Amino acid sequence: MNIAGKPYRTIWAEGTGVCIIDQRALPHAFVIERLTRWEEAATAIRDMRVRGAGLIGATAGWGMALAARQAAASGDPGLLTTAAAGLNATRPTAVNLAWATRRVLAACLELRDPGERAARAEQEARRIADEDADMCRRIGEHGLPLIERIHAANPGRPVRILTHCNAGWLAFVDYGSATAPIYAAHDRGIPLEVWVDETRPRNQGASLTAWELGNHGVPHTVIVDNAGGHLMQNGQVDLVITGADRVTRCGDAANKIGTYLKALAASDNHLPFYVALPSSTFDWNMRDGLREIPIEQRDASEVHSISGWDGSRVTTVRLTPEHSPAANYGFDVTPARLIRGLITERGVCPASEEGVLSLFPEHATTTDRCRPQSP
Amino acid sequence: MNIAGKPYRTIWAEGTGVCIIDQRALPHAFVIERLTRWEEAATAIRDMRVRGAGLIGATAGWGMALAARQAAASGDPGLLTTAAAGLNATRPTAVNLAWATRRVLAACLELRDPGERAARAEQEARRIADEDADMCRRIGEHGLPLIERIHAANPGRPVRILTHCNAGWLAFVDYGSATAPIYAAHDRGIPLEVWVDETRPRNQGASLTAWELGNHGVPHTVIVDNAGGHLMQNGQVDLVITGADRVTRCGDAANKIGTYLKALAASDNHLPFYVALPSSTFDWNMRDGLREIPIEQRDASEVHSISGWDGSRVTTVRLTPEHSPAANYGFDVTPARLIRGLITERGVCPASEEGVLSLFPEHATTTDRCRPQSP
Repeated sequence: MNIAGKPYRTIWAEGTGVCIIDQRALPHAFVIERLTRWEEAATAIRDMRVRGAGLIGATAGWGMALAARQAAASGDPGLLTTAAAGLNATRPTAVNLAWATRRVLAACLELRDPGERAARAEQEARRIADEDADMCRRIGEHGLPLIERIHAANPGRPVRILTHCNAGWLAFVDYGSATAPIYAAHDRGIPLEVWVDETRPRNQGASLTAWELGNHGVPHTVIVDNAGGHLMQNGQVDLVITGADRVTRCGDAANKIGTYLKALAASDNHLPFYVALPSSTFDWNMRDGLREIPIEQRDASEVHSISGWDGSRVTTVRLTPEHSPAANYGFDVTPARLIRGLITERGVCPASEEGVLSLFPEHATTTDRCRPQSP
Repeated sequence: MNIAGKPYRTIWAEGTGVCIIDQRALPHAFVIERLTRWEEAATAIRDMRVRGAGLIGATAGWGMALAARQAAASGDPGLLTTAAAGLNATRPTAVNLAWATRRVLAACLELRDPGERAARAEQEARRIADEDADMCRRIGEHGLPLIERIHAANPGRPVRILTHCNAGWLAFVDYGSATAPIYAAHDRGIPLEVWVDETRPRNQGASLTAWELGNHGVPHTVIVDNAGGHLMQNGQVDLVITGADRVTRCGDAANKIGTYLKALAASDNHLPFYVALPSSTFDWNMRDGLREIPIEQRDASEVHSISGWDGSRVTTVRLTPEHSPAANYGFDVTPARLIRGLITERGVCPASEEGVLSLFPEHATTTDRCRPQSP
């Protein structure tokens, strides 16, 4: 998407290296970093300069391409498997990591010549990134009619969409998941107003979603996470779209902590709540999200403190009393009964096993039965 | 309640003056300020060194007592009405202000002697503060059985109570409203664990509620506002108690933004959600809270920025992109259908006109009819 009028992806080749945006500096500074060694790619993932499932996978793929080039230059063929192990270990729970490194490894290890291997690794890394961007573009195309219909019914005013956390292009290679329908609608001239939840504790909404929407020119307003219910009660929201970290085959969605509260408010006010996801986010082995999806507990320091711009630099300030404990749950689970539909690269479907399998019939089994969906 | 083992109120007489806690410095510093002139009391209210309906009323009462003493010393009897007007103008929407100044004025203007007036004004100021403390104490006594019943059913573990914002003793003279049953239970030895919502944007939970609970020795854990739904889904909350800024005669409750989301989560998980309030919080002229209660929009800077302790001083840091707009709604309305009961100084009642009038029959009229409570 655009940054100050110029199109970008979150990762792109430049000369013999690959460039990323250091997302830790956002929204206060726009810093591009050029990586030329796989170790730098690993550091970028580990330090969360890049984050989000799609972008982590693409960065791991490019890390393998850099490793193949280093292997060709040094004459050390073992470097490729070392790099794969090193990249896989950067964020243990990110499934895209091992998927991407395995894919590049499989593509290039069938060749003998180090130079050919390096060329094939680069080709595969490009493919991974291009496929991610194309998948998000298709999510946008499938989600677009939801926004078009609201606009057609209310032609004189912007369509008001609420989103939580950052499921934007910064979490993928381009377009994003929750933001893909938003960008598609904006680029077709549909007037929008996006409510951006700041998304404590890490404030990905305030720092990333607001930044990327603003840079692409999409009208938006930042709100605290407490405000969405009031806006929905007062007719100021038409549609809620969030991303997801893991969705069961029955449609329960784990996403950033607080998503469930917005889904409850949407349900209470008869508003459509959609989850946008690439199909790689489905966990085909899980049915009951509340019982089965493990919820990460993160460091209490994210609740105790917050970072922001003090006028000259990024400063961390403490918010809580010195001796007060804090708890920090990273995600919550929104039950399928609260989700109007799932927006995927193959289309939009109801959040139910039947709905999901109508788009992904290859995952049908004969034994599955979801739990009843009464509350 | 206790601060580091020593009992305090939020306002108390000392010599010829009156002491307050400068709440702007909490939780990072404990600063006591002594006021000797009504103008200082006005400044304390205007600058939000003191806040909360009960404490604002008590400070205005003491401001009038200081004015009566200044009038006796200077021989200027007009000073009393000047002080009343000055105090009333400090926070135009706080109804307790005019109520308290009028009350002290009425008590002392019937006397002629300036010295007697000053003594009577001080007596009335003490009464206002004592009555506020006693009202909160009674809220605590009436709410206590709710906690005792949960404890009796689960004797081997703490009773887990979630609260939002600060409806604590710092907002009143002592005990608080939402916290009164909590302190009553703690002081009787019932083991508790209080989940404290940080309550963005002004973080009254993280900075005030956590501080006062910690100083009184009540076990508590600070969470981001997004976390409560997940805790309720996972059986980690037994009871929710919040305060209120305004409650209609039919039981709709306006309280700090985000309260409605917690009430929805409590309802979805079949958990009791109670609102604690002194009866002065009822607006007997309103029925439908969603339509009738005006919701204040506050400055966007509270969303854009946050203040905290940088290690040596309180610093304000910016959280959002420079050009992103923000909206800041101060309150939301929780419909009566989501409220299990109201805890008042006269007892606990259902959140309905019938329930409210069973405790406050003097407010019955023949014309009232609340809106139906189906969602």
